[in-house]
Amino acid sequence: MTIPEQRLRAFTHSIFKSIGCPDADAALATDVLVTADLRGVDSHGVARLSGYVRLWETGRLNAAPQPRVVHETPTTATVDGDGGLGLVVAPYAMDIAIEKAKQYGSGWVAIRHSNHFGIAGYHALKAVAQDMIGYALTNASPLVAPTFSAERLLGTNPICYAFPAGKYPPVVVDMATSAAANGKLEVAARAGKTIPEGWALTTHGHPTTDAAAVKNGGALLPLGSDRSHGSHKGFGLSATVDILSGVLSGANYGPWVPPFVAYLQPLADQPGEGIGHFVGAMRVDGFRPVADFKANMDQWIARFKDAKRVDERQPVIIPGEPEYEATHVYREKGIPLVEAVWDDLQQLAAKLGVAPLMAEGMAQNR
Amino acid sequence: MTIPEQRLRAFTHSIFKSIGCPDADAALATDVLVTADLRGVDSHGVARLSGYVRLWETGRLNAAPQPRVVHETPTTATVDGDGGLGLVVAPYAMDIAIEKAKQYGSGWVAIRHSNHFGIAGYHALKAVAQDMIGYALTNASPLVAPTFSAERLLGTNPICYAFPAGKYPPVVVDMATSAAANGKLEVAARAGKTIPEGWALTTHGHPTTDAAAVKNGGALLPLGSDRSHGSHKGFGLSATVDILSGVLSGANYGPWVPPFVAYLQPLADQPGEGIGHFVGAMRVDGFRPVADFKANMDQWIARFKDAKRVDERQPVIIPGEPEYEATHVYREKGIPLVEAVWDDLQQLAAKLGVAPLMAEGMAQNR
Repeated sequence: MTIPEQRLRAFTHSIFKSIGCPDADAALATDVLVTADLRGVDSHGVARLSGYVRLWETGRLNAAPQPRVVHETPTTATVDGDGGLGLVVAPYAMDIAIEKAKQYGSGWVAIRHSNHFGIAGYHALKAVAQDMIGYALTNASPLVAPTFSAERLLGTNPICYAFPAGKYPPVVVDMATSAAANGKLEVAARAGKTIPEGWALTTHGHPTTDAAAVKNGGALLPLGSDRSHGSHKGFGLSATVDILSGVLSGANYGPWVPPFVAYLQPLADQPGEGIGHFVGAMRVDGFRPVADFKANMDQWIARFKDAKRVDERQPVIIPGEPEYEATHVYREKGIPLVEAVWDDLQQLAAKLGVAPLMAEGMAQNR
Repeated sequence: MTIPEQRLRAFTHSIFKSIGCPDADAALATDVLVTADLRGVDSHGVARLSGYVRLWETGRLNAAPQPRVVHETPTTATVDGDGGLGLVVAPYAMDIAIEKAKQYGSGWVAIRHSNHFGIAGYHALKAVAQDMIGYALTNASPLVAPTFSAERLLGTNPICYAFPAGKYPPVVVDMATSAAANGKLEVAARAGKTIPEGWALTTHGHPTTDAAAVKNGGALLPLGSDRSHGSHKGFGLSATVDILSGVLSGANYGPWVPPFVAYLQPLADQPGEGIGHFVGAMRVDGFRPVADFKANMDQWIARFKDAKRVDERQPVIIPGEPEYEATHVYREKGIPLVEAVWDDLQQLAAKLGVAPLMAEGMAQNR
């Protein structure tokens, strides 16, 4: 199924409105999700919509939050997200970081008492639009085992840095700190395939190629996979994300980060509130003239694109470039949805009394 | 050979003085190198001393630099290192970042026209001593091939984050963004051993277990090793370090970063000056009270140390803990030097007319 962008936006907006989101919040949350789909990051797009709704149904999501600054210096702040959608709270925080950067050169905001914020790249790119370098992190429910542990203690805790360029699209490094995303295991499991060693452990902490390992209580591995290939580095990065997002903000961290899926209960005795994010912005012209930086970025990008290839058919991929190209294609041709997501969205619409989604070519007024 | 800390400091100080470093610069450079040895990071300690001297001999290192701020906002700055030792220039820049953080909550300094800065952890830990979060990056001479490239375009480009804790030592994530350090290949080559797949490529970009691969023109692999295990993430992190350290500061980047070893010439047509670093500091109390943060850090550390183990004998290692423990042991028992480093230092002393190093138990006044 392929859905025109505007139609997917209108539908998503209606869903968020139907659970009580104010109009502006619904528009913002929609923009974050549909931007993920436009960028081809379909694991973080409207496929998650029913998950957010289920969290709201269990009372763990405030559809009309009043996020507020609870601690502040000229260039730092902590935001309490009032239990709202991270899709709404993180842009609120990033706007504060950008305002601080306009005034003082940089701005950094830790966020607590929030929920899943969608793709990190959305938030970091808000800074790029102002000729700033953008930074966005979030912790997430525990799925990843630290090096030498058989226990899930960290989320896939993504890191995003986004840099403006000149004639090229922005460079956007937006990456989970695990070796593989859980979604890749789910795809392999549905296809009845095994997974490479180095992605996951069994519940006993042994290497496995079983795609159902994590679903059955095992753990994802940090980037680096095993000690000899640097998994302690992936663990260190994930720990950094957890500390900046969770410990610094007063959110939960480690095994206490509340699960995204509504059927799992948060642990008792939580040390903080909700999940945590961390966002930041630095003005490029806080360091050098923007035109000079962009000219050098263009040279950097051109040189890496021109790198000697291992396989002549496969050039080096500049981080963020495939997502930028996907956006152009999907804007024009519509956004593809897999059947499971399509069905899920239609059931969601029926449940909430929202008009069903129409695919490309379907009559809009049936 | 085991050398008492103070004796190694006095010797290193004499070497730096003998090439023309002012007394304060020599003391600072000594502190950075000996701190690396104390932390057990012997690849970045006095083993590098003769390398710095050779760079000075070829005229590529200014022993008495006048680093200066060339661009500034309240919380950002660019420093020109005047071709000095990174060991001296990076602490100068970090002091600026810390001062800005004291005044405005955070401070960020990009550094160009510098040289190798030793261990990133030294610089980040300067912030921790002020109850700040420390951040330090540097680019380095090209040894790492991006995903899908057979060409060395990036250094091992380390990232360091350091966080204060309460009763526990600081958490220090200090990691190269390659799968393995080049030093590990050198150790394997000397021992006549092979290396694991996933560390290096041949000059044609093929996987190899040959420990001499990089020495013979091949490349190190980014953290993640191959595409299916996330090498594009290691590439993205390394690119981030290169952009913040090199492009943002006006230093060189990518293949143009000048080599540390004096026998390799820098490329012609360099787009920037010297190598680049990036350092930063954020006040913990810019986000929440320090005592609250430290209490939660202690809980974080305790929980991760207590993680369920894969092997009962091997607990989870908290980033920075082994280095902290090594420091206590080496402070008391002296710093071990391998024979090759010992010989190298004695030859260096003879060449520069400096009194030779004496090991533990050797008469100091022979």
